[in-house]
Amino acid sequence: MSYAAHLGLTVQEASPELTRVTVTVGHAGLNMHGSAHGGLLFSLADEALAVISNLDAQAVAIETHLSFFRAARPGDTLMALATPERVGRTLATYRVEIRREADWELVALFQGTVSRREQK
Amino acid sequence: MSYAAHLGLTVQEASPELTRVTVTVGHAGLNMHGSAHGGLLFSLADEALAVISNLDAQAVAIETHLSFFRAARPGDTLMALATPERVGRTLATYRVEIRREADWELVALFQGTVSRREQK
Amino acid sequence: MSYAAHLGLTVQEASPELTRVTVTVGHAGLNMHGSAHGGLLFSLADEALAVISNLDAQAVAIETHLSFFRAARPGDTLMALATPERVGRTLATYRVEIRREADWELVALFQGTVSRREQK
Amino acid sequence: MSYAAHLGLTVQEASPELTRVTVTVGHAGLNMHGSAHGGLLFSLADEALAVISNLDAQAVAIETHLSFFRAARPGDTLMALATPERVGRTLATYRVEIRREADWELVALFQGTVSRREQK
Repeated sequence: MSYAAHLGLTVQEASPELTRVTVTVGHAGLNMHGSAHGGLLFSLADEALAVISNLDAQAVAIETHLSFFRAARPGDTLMALATPERVGRTLATYRVEIRREADWELVALFQGTVSRREQK
Repeated sequence: MSYAAHLGLTVQEASPELTRVTVTVGHAGLNMHGSAHGGLLFSLADEALAVISNLDAQAVAIETHLSFFRAARPGDTLMALATPERVGRTLATYRVEIRREADWELVALFQGTVSRREQK
Repeated sequence: MSYAAHLGLTVQEASPELTRVTVTVGHAGLNMHGSAHGGLLFSLADEALAVISNLDAQAVAIETHLSFFRAARPGDTLMALATPERVGRTLATYRVEIRREADWELVALFQGTVSRREQK
Repeated sequence: MSYAAHLGLTVQEASPELTRVTVTVGHAGLNMHGSAHGGLLFSLADEALAVISNLDAQAVAIETHLSFFRAARPGDTLMALATPERVGRTLATYRVEIRREADWELVALFQGTVSRREQK
């Protein structure tokens, strides 16, 4: 079982323009404050980054930035929406918004840059 | 069971000067390339950040940056070493190095800033 | 003369929804490779951040992230377009795109978070 | 005149292990609050990054992160101290501390990643 499956991450949609991954915050996803662990939010966003950046290339993440805006609670379904900021020959940068599905509130904002090799 | 327990993160040492958290990369921690998922590395670092920043305050993460240097493999034990960069009254920034325990190779480098309230 | 004036930064538009600052790359703005110095791009974006975040609050930057996508050349007019990602009571995060005015090419992407105090 | 000269940045020491660049905050370096403009701090750090990363390679910055800790005032001499975090074949990451020369107080903390090509 992969890490994504272990956490319950589900790829709902995968295209180079928009990739969407979801997770429902369960009791195994909480931090010491009783809200979704930052690691769960990051994993969700990073999975969306991995999927979108590997659709038409072989890509590995170089660096990522994640800002936390709101706490997510047990039972919340979160979605990561990944879109390209800039795709170059050897580097690409993506934006990933983490939103609460129920009301589209922006929970966290992620940006990731990958090193890539185009597939023949 | 908390997220940290779910992933097998273990706090080995917790002081305001140095906090150390470890994890052994198992099969449930892998990405599509067969190496440790970025989300696992982040979760390890973020847990170290949460522990160190909450030792003498109530703190929540605002933003984090993570750079990936080397792939970690199944069986590798990784440690996150958190140290303070600057602790202010309402904000604090920490550095977290993720190293492979066997040879101290730097696998990833994390920085996190928290909003904090000192405890009375 | 302020730093902004010293570099030739010009605020073209300032509202909480969109703030725009421009600069034309001159010979005093070049790096060792003959293209616009990263410091000039940052200064342009940071000025847009300072303006937009201080329109209805007293704000100081906590942290910023800047990704470089394309080189800008002498004679290029660049604009920084700042928009809010999330404005909270004590913290706010803004996105600033740096575009070449002639063709709207995205030259660099900036994100900044400020600590803020609302004005009475 | 280069951007570095225009701002008064002076390279004091340049080796792959440690590169040091200084600037004295003048009246042309101030922001709307009367302290050193974030752009000046960034330019100082970015110059140190450019120098250290180009000593034994051809390098261009991909992304940078800058955290602000303390305000710097007119008359303060600031130094940027750049050291390598990790130098790989095609990518390298450097840490740059910005300190006030008089008391070594940490004013800001910068991290930058470059794309590099080794020189023959």
